Amino acid sequence: MHTDLVAALDIGGTKIAGALVDGGGRIRLRTRRPTPAREDAETVMGAVESVLGELSGSPLWARTRAVGIGSAGPVDASAGTVSPVNVPGWRDFPLVSRVRRAVGGLPVELVGDGAAMTAAEHWQGAARGYANALCLVVSTGVGGGLVIGGKLYPGPTGNAGHIGHISVDLDGDLCPCGARGCVERIASGPNIARRALAGGWRPGPDGDSSAAAVAVAARAGDPFAVASFERAAQALAAGIAATATLIEIEIAVVGGGVAGAGDVLFGPLRRHLREYATLSFVRRLTVAPALTGTDAGLVGAAAAALLGTAR
Amino acid sequence: MHTDLVAALDIGGTKIAGALVDGGGRIRLRTRRPTPAREDAETVMGAVESVLGELSGSPLWARTRAVGIGSAGPVDASAGTVSPVNVPGWRDFPLVSRVRRAVGGLPVELVGDGAAMTAAEHWQGAARGYANALCLVVSTGVGGGLVIGGKLYPGPTGNAGHIGHISVDLDGDLCPCGARGCVERIASGPNIARRALAGGWRPGPDGDSSAAAVAVAARAGDPFAVASFERAAQALAAGIAATATLIEIEIAVVGGGVAGAGDVLFGPLRRHLREYATLSFVRRLTVAPALTGTDAGLVGAAAAALLGTAR
Repeated sequence: MHTDLVAALDIGGTKIAGALVDGGGRIRLRTRRPTPAREDAETVMGAVESVLGELSGSPLWARTRAVGIGSAGPVDASAGTVSPVNVPGWRDFPLVSRVRRAVGGLPVELVGDGAAMTAAEHWQGAARGYANALCLVVSTGVGGGLVIGGKLYPGPTGNAGHIGHISVDLDGDLCPCGARGCVERIASGPNIARRALAGGWRPGPDGDSSAAAVAVAARAGDPFAVASFERAAQALAAGIAATATLIEIEIAVVGGGVAGAGDVLFGPLRRHLREYATLSFVRRLTVAPALTGTDAGLVGAAAAALLGTAR
Repeated sequence: MHTDLVAALDIGGTKIAGALVDGGGRIRLRTRRPTPAREDAETVMGAVESVLGELSGSPLWARTRAVGIGSAGPVDASAGTVSPVNVPGWRDFPLVSRVRRAVGGLPVELVGDGAAMTAAEHWQGAARGYANALCLVVSTGVGGGLVIGGKLYPGPTGNAGHIGHISVDLDGDLCPCGARGCVERIASGPNIARRALAGGWRPGPDGDSSAAAVAVAARAGDPFAVASFERAAQALAAGIAATATLIEIEIAVVGGGVAGAGDVLFGPLRRHLREYATLSFVRRLTVAPALTGTDAGLVGAAAAALLGTAR
């Protein structure tokens, strides 16, 4: 078979992954480089060009028709620029035009990493078949993306669905973004760990104080660990309910490392959702764990390039 | 000129208004009946049929091509039914099919009253020319609607943009909807008045303890009245910022009786918005007072029928 392929780039603060992906969502070739996150703009772009060079050196390249990029945010898809928080050398960096030049003028589609994960879950994961969905990544931060009317909806700048920075506690703790009581400030992995420690939870002999370790403790019944996940779930529920009430989503898909906590998170999340999603048109809202794994960024970037968006 | 017309119905808990509206948004004929809100379903429908009968008795009726309905919610546009909170006789009432039958089979478009006001503001008001907007009605309750990608976005059931019942204070006061800390629970007219009274504000000799009277007192410098509007503005700002962060809106248009307070509301609202709308892609968000007045419901229902929606 000689079907068309797309190239996908997943650009984060620690790694730059690239792949060639076919129309069925299968990764046919992959490569990656560490992100030289503390270096200047051209050095970072050099790593991207190195990834693209490896892809374009493959015999499969002749069948590649477009490039999809999912990047750590903020991004500005309308301007074709990115300003990833953890890559200070890139501020309003013209990534789309630079990639387009590097690949000889192929079409390039840029979305934020939340939108990319959402595209992957809508194409191949738990949001498949849903016309209106929110997908969340709960990890070091909290990101997200939207499907509206059956298509990925990245918004004018590619950042729509950015649930981590909506306030659900208007008098709450100051968030690094400048607002108060953001979902991320309460529900991200580091905040789950911080709150468990502040409550009185103590790590085991290995000293692991990550949210994953808190999840293990919560499953064993540690009350401070349970309480910290309970609070994170409450904040996520309030944010998901707000999104459903504003946009009438039918499903919220939760991925990212913190979602690996399983029932410790999803149990209280479903319970709190019944408290906050009260209006008739949001009561049937479903919550499901994400199905696409560590390749979600690459698969989603490919989906954005292949299927287009509602922007 | 013999241009086409549409019939518009604005159905609320106190009145049922009807009009024939031309393609320029001008009302060519209008009528209204009190809503027999405590009566049975057929009596309420009888009032609607009486309004439609008056419209269809006009010589202008021959040019009428469709009917747009804006109704107090919740509505279910996908089922064609309405269940207005303040009209207990109507629960899942099949309003669309009943109106279609009453008008001899013309096309009928149903939206919630928040979406109708939004359609009016996007057609003729402060949201004109914006591709992505949130319009709010701050009054006895707090409602709203969305414009996405240049079109009214009512959502699958016609309730999208229902900002009044998103929680911005997850541990806050219980809302009649069952959730806590909803925008409406903090920012509606009755809640502004309640909080001012609880703080220590006292009405004047006329005994008027409405939000409008609190606004007069706030303009005169009463600290409890000022504080109550300040809190309402903070909740509205958190809700508007959340909407912008989720859907990348460019403007929030605020109408309804409470918006009549003017700078007493809009001053702190703009200030708090800078605190909550912090990410790069929402920092340019504008707030403006609504321009369409008491006819917004009729004009918006006409717009929904004339221009269609993005549902």
